[in-house]
Amino acid sequence: MQTLQVDLGERSYPIYIGADLLAAPALLAAHIVGRQVAIVTNETVAPLYLAALEKALAGYAVTSIVLPDGEAFKTWETLQMIFDGLLGARHDRRTTVIALGGGVIGDMAGFAAACYQRGVNFIQIPTTLLSQVDSSVGGKTGINHPLGKNMVGAFYQPQAVLIDTMSLVTLPARELSAGLAEVIKYGLICDEPFLTWLELNMPALRALDQVALTRAIERSCAAKAQVVGADERESGLRATLNLGHTFGHAIETHQGYGVWLHGEAVAAGTVMALEMSMRLGWISAAERNRAIRLFQAAGLPVVPPTEMTPEHFLEHMAVDKKVLDGRLRLVLLRRIGEAVVTSEFPREILDATLSADYAALVDQLKN
Amino acid sequence: MQTLQVDLGERSYPIYIGADLLAAPALLAAHIVGRQVAIVTNETVAPLYLAALEKALAGYAVTSIVLPDGEAFKTWETLQMIFDGLLGARHDRRTTVIALGGGVIGDMAGFAAACYQRGVNFIQIPTTLLSQVDSSVGGKTGINHPLGKNMVGAFYQPQAVLIDTMSLVTLPARELSAGLAEVIKYGLICDEPFLTWLELNMPALRALDQVALTRAIERSCAAKAQVVGADERESGLRATLNLGHTFGHAIETHQGYGVWLHGEAVAAGTVMALEMSMRLGWISAAERNRAIRLFQAAGLPVVPPTEMTPEHFLEHMAVDKKVLDGRLRLVLLRRIGEAVVTSEFPREILDATLSADYAALVDQLKN
Repeated sequence: MQTLQVDLGERSYPIYIGADLLAAPALLAAHIVGRQVAIVTNETVAPLYLAALEKALAGYAVTSIVLPDGEAFKTWETLQMIFDGLLGARHDRRTTVIALGGGVIGDMAGFAAACYQRGVNFIQIPTTLLSQVDSSVGGKTGINHPLGKNMVGAFYQPQAVLIDTMSLVTLPARELSAGLAEVIKYGLICDEPFLTWLELNMPALRALDQVALTRAIERSCAAKAQVVGADERESGLRATLNLGHTFGHAIETHQGYGVWLHGEAVAAGTVMALEMSMRLGWISAAERNRAIRLFQAAGLPVVPPTEMTPEHFLEHMAVDKKVLDGRLRLVLLRRIGEAVVTSEFPREILDATLSADYAALVDQLKN
Repeated sequence: MQTLQVDLGERSYPIYIGADLLAAPALLAAHIVGRQVAIVTNETVAPLYLAALEKALAGYAVTSIVLPDGEAFKTWETLQMIFDGLLGARHDRRTTVIALGGGVIGDMAGFAAACYQRGVNFIQIPTTLLSQVDSSVGGKTGINHPLGKNMVGAFYQPQAVLIDTMSLVTLPARELSAGLAEVIKYGLICDEPFLTWLELNMPALRALDQVALTRAIERSCAAKAQVVGADERESGLRATLNLGHTFGHAIETHQGYGVWLHGEAVAAGTVMALEMSMRLGWISAAERNRAIRLFQAAGLPVVPPTEMTPEHFLEHMAVDKKVLDGRLRLVLLRRIGEAVVTSEFPREILDATLSADYAALVDQLKN
């Protein structure tokens, strides 16, 4: 088992990474303060792992709350089911909420923990690669609003994160690829050697090689922890983690939540950010193509939906959280391994990026 | 104008107390960071003060969100109206939310500010005496749940609080009395000389003497700031602010939100806490009667609803936030001017307190 400490002063916490951690009750017990525990999971994950977790929590008063599965349910109505479950079983302010599932479960259970009686203990057990390398670090919780993703939420740190690498065995291949989009992102924004490692190990990762997966998760969490530790409230450096997310969120919003997986939208969105970085003269066409090939090797889409016009993108990006006082700020690559957040770009470059023919670009790469 | 600094390290903020502060734009401008402002108010307060505030905010992009009035509307559905208003007008994360109204508006606007895009700037302009002396300090925000008051919320500090003492001129007398219940509470829990001052000045306060009101508000906020500054997260000392609230919440819950005003329930609940303190031998009958007479002089009820049985109280108190691991903790008076939080009391004393004949007790005082 590997332990990574996320250093946030009083709110520091450990991330445990290893096989079969669900069957390690002592690890959980060390982070539970009272006698009450509420497990929040969903209809897909519950049949796979809920019984094992409940067994590990024998001796506690456990309430299991099973939510419907999917980003479409990341709403207040579903969140209310958690509050109903907590209040129905009379959980007091010393209860511990455990998120067992992917990013949606983590976001909702974390937001519920942040708000229930103004804040109770929270432990994350992420079961998808995306949530393991993304939601494990950063303390972002929240729900969607009909007018935008993650518009209602809180920064709330867990007591601990348990990553059981064996849980990836039951993960659909498409979701594994979606998680790899974020893994690749860390290489692009701050760790060029990791990018090279990923190019060599992509086949092993997709074949669920446990050693390769453990290394990729650890390196991803460490990269994110370093960025978040330096800038917890997302003013500058932390925003570089959003490489591809502004374009990606526009894709997700336009297509409707859940049609594209988050990681898929991030992959296509990152390709757009790379295209724009190239048009600014910051990276070469070869570097852009290198990243596109890696996304393809991970089984990810690299072309935004063909029906989306530049106007669609602009419309959806205007309420993006990275818009400050009306100025659009984007995360771009100054070079491979170094991201910057900037609103200093000619409007024509943005327009050219939004109207570029990505399908033709990808076709070219085949030759 | 008096300025009281609430000392919370990085999250410290000033409380400005004085007449006609709504007409002092510079005071507001000092605490607004971006160009966008959202005023959250209700149907009762809007006709009285919204135009003046909007005038003071000339030059900003202002969105005014007018909610229905009352504790019954302290729900997610109403909170959603704030998010709809913010997103509809495309407020970004540098927006400032201003609460203009009583405690319900402050709690909801503050919780909306805490959650909108995971936290935006927040300024409070409390217009009722209760919210001026209670919600101004402590950072508590939130909404009710059908199964309990304030069960969903956040600790979130404002950038500043503006208390315009002139706003009390339009406050119904019953609500002024409800605010005085909390003012009296500060004397009981930590400031015996203030209690004596209140006994002398109660007629002036009820006659809206501005000098007396300013002094009472300042002293109340200072008392609360001292307690909260010493213990921001409500583990020990801060809980003493809840004198009368455990019994009072049971009364509010049983009667249905809004039938009794919060301050009225706190007054009757505090009488129960005093009765229990007396039965424990901590205060004398004369001291209990002194407090009852002061509540009466403030125009407050001192007898819990006659239809409430001891069982009703126990049922409603069992999910109270002050219940830790199933043990009921109560705020009681060790002596006048010193409150303690304790679960160390014989069950019989609690039962006797719940079944005491408060109507007969008050009748006796008339003689």
